[in-house]
Amino acid sequence: MLNFNFYNPTKIVFGEGRLKKLNNLVPQNAKVLITYGGGSVKRFGVLDQVKDELSKGSREVLEFGGIPANPRFDILLDAIKIVREQKVDFILAVGGGSVIDGTKFIAVAAVADEYEGRERELMNFGFTPVPVDGAIPFGTVLTLPATGSEMNNGAVISDGEDKLPVFSDHTFPKFSILDPVLTYTLPPTQVANGVVDTFIHTIEQYVTFPVGAGFQDRTAEGILQTLIEVGKTTMDEPENYNARANLVWCSTMALNGLIGAGVPQDWATHMIGHEITALTGLDHAKTLAVIQIANWKIRRTPKKKKLLQYAERVWGIREGDDDARIDLAIEKTENFFNSLGMATRLSDYDIGADIVDKVVAALEKHGMTQLSEHGDVTLDVSRKMLEEAL
Amino acid sequence: MLNFNFYNPTKIVFGEGRLKKLNNLVPQNAKVLITYGGGSVKRFGVLDQVKDELSKGSREVLEFGGIPANPRFDILLDAIKIVREQKVDFILAVGGGSVIDGTKFIAVAAVADEYEGRERELMNFGFTPVPVDGAIPFGTVLTLPATGSEMNNGAVISDGEDKLPVFSDHTFPKFSILDPVLTYTLPPTQVANGVVDTFIHTIEQYVTFPVGAGFQDRTAEGILQTLIEVGKTTMDEPENYNARANLVWCSTMALNGLIGAGVPQDWATHMIGHEITALTGLDHAKTLAVIQIANWKIRRTPKKKKLLQYAERVWGIREGDDDARIDLAIEKTENFFNSLGMATRLSDYDIGADIVDKVVAALEKHGMTQLSEHGDVTLDVSRKMLEEAL
Repeated sequence: MLNFNFYNPTKIVFGEGRLKKLNNLVPQNAKVLITYGGGSVKRFGVLDQVKDELSKGSREVLEFGGIPANPRFDILLDAIKIVREQKVDFILAVGGGSVIDGTKFIAVAAVADEYEGRERELMNFGFTPVPVDGAIPFGTVLTLPATGSEMNNGAVISDGEDKLPVFSDHTFPKFSILDPVLTYTLPPTQVANGVVDTFIHTIEQYVTFPVGAGFQDRTAEGILQTLIEVGKTTMDEPENYNARANLVWCSTMALNGLIGAGVPQDWATHMIGHEITALTGLDHAKTLAVIQIANWKIRRTPKKKKLLQYAERVWGIREGDDDARIDLAIEKTENFFNSLGMATRLSDYDIGADIVDKVVAALEKHGMTQLSEHGDVTLDVSRKMLEEAL
Repeated sequence: MLNFNFYNPTKIVFGEGRLKKLNNLVPQNAKVLITYGGGSVKRFGVLDQVKDELSKGSREVLEFGGIPANPRFDILLDAIKIVREQKVDFILAVGGGSVIDGTKFIAVAAVADEYEGRERELMNFGFTPVPVDGAIPFGTVLTLPATGSEMNNGAVISDGEDKLPVFSDHTFPKFSILDPVLTYTLPPTQVANGVVDTFIHTIEQYVTFPVGAGFQDRTAEGILQTLIEVGKTTMDEPENYNARANLVWCSTMALNGLIGAGVPQDWATHMIGHEITALTGLDHAKTLAVIQIANWKIRRTPKKKKLLQYAERVWGIREGDDDARIDLAIEKTENFFNSLGMATRLSDYDIGADIVDKVVAALEKHGMTQLSEHGDVTLDVSRKMLEEAL
């Protein structure tokens, strides 16, 4: 097991009807900015429920809607301006990963006047010339299980074709309300995205090389098995409470630091996927599904021991030689994604061979030349994965 | 899945050599009280290492040793007096669960002068006439993996034959340093206690009745499988880093709220075990081993579904009818405890039949008349378990 730090102070309030706790969770006299995305939280009444609860205290409540999927830097600047000018002292994100990610950046950038005009420097791949030394406190009401942003301190912000990370000890939500019922109205494609996103978050921290981390490996395997168990059900029966509750809790647990503590991590699939999204607008989870399968086909040798463990413990594959077991595990994974309506080839999304050069150039521009748990995913290896994924 | 809250703000600093982080973790100008137990932290040099690190800041450092296993209320009062009189503003617990539990109580009771003379009212089974509304901040250096106290907010304090709980949002350690190497010098019986204690903490939150909690069940099973995998090894090879690291991390994870979130919990074994310890002084883990086996033998019907799941997923038992599979799972569990040198009968510890009436009377005195996940462990059922355990 590798040495590690683990710290996660977000309070989780989980279950049906837990929105009623909002009045206890948001400070009574706060000036609150509610952040959200498109119209779905309005259309399905979540925003009204949130405002009803907040109105039980003596709070002033402002709203900022329109944060898009892959939250855009220029749009977030408008929210940052409101927080500064209106002296907002609590932010409540109502939505999925994009709204929560965007809110983390708003919270960090708006906390001090000295950041004004230098907001972009707060991101820039974690090497920030401006120190992030605080954040406006914020909570979340989750409406889309996928990214885990509701219980971690990371965010990814889009600026043109750049996808820029934000990380800080200050960007953990104070609380997150996770009510599976609030996610019943999601369209099937977003549920599929959530299942696959969670699956691959787990894979990135698990299918690397063994370091004898019993708890972490088995917890990762437990998340994968649970997703396989409930994935199709939660798509076919969106109001099956228990299936959805398992998806929601697994998606939070997959990226809150727990399964990644003390083990090597890959993330090559994510880095390549981010570039594809930035260049084409393809959903994050779909880029991951495509690249993960290609990653394993190209890098089965450095990942051999963990792929065999994954084959046996997650899929129960015990017959055949090493190569056959790995082949079958990859095939079963691809079939699982496909069973959710998730295609696993770039061509399925009308993305042609010209994407390869573009992604490789973007990876080079962003310094992504030695990705993965071994640092062995050079631009050449990334190119091979992309070609495999066509 | 049941509704739940999850909150755990303790920062974990895990791995070999992490004691070196102490100087960054304890406030620079603090007046620090180091709390510890018997002489082992002195004898094996841990206390000196701790003091070396603390001396790197401009801190004043006091010591309070002699906190016994099953930390005694009267002894802790002496420490509380020191904290009050000396205006200590940080406490560092160096030891196992008893030292950390005792430190939690010190931290709570010493925080306000109004508690003076009313310290015992801060416990009393969670119904506190005196509200617990703060605590002196404290951290821990763990030297004995077992209780999970290093990453939760609970403590059990002994006062005569009473074992009194302390719980509060304020009694999470600010940080805990978990260096497996610091535990190499433990005597084998304490390592066995740690394995069994962790195993049964997990069982209490897992072998109840199913509520469809995929993540929680599989994470609990992962802890149990990991303990079975490393238990004997970490006793036979105390300096096998990885085996010990797995024990340490599992023992923390078994009782930090994670696997118990959203599922029913039993704890009858613990409540009965506490009374046995209070009456006889028998080690906590040994009482648990004895009573857990008896609990399952007496209550196999209300626990049937989960015992079958435990048999299959933890022990791989798939042959035979329901009763045979449950019998084999109980037998394998008992054999596992025995393989660690842990006896599973009260008579093995020279405790005779007269304990039964005494424990039942103590349970009655403490209001423990409807224990377990179903509230079906009446005094009669507790009596049957004790008789089974003789």
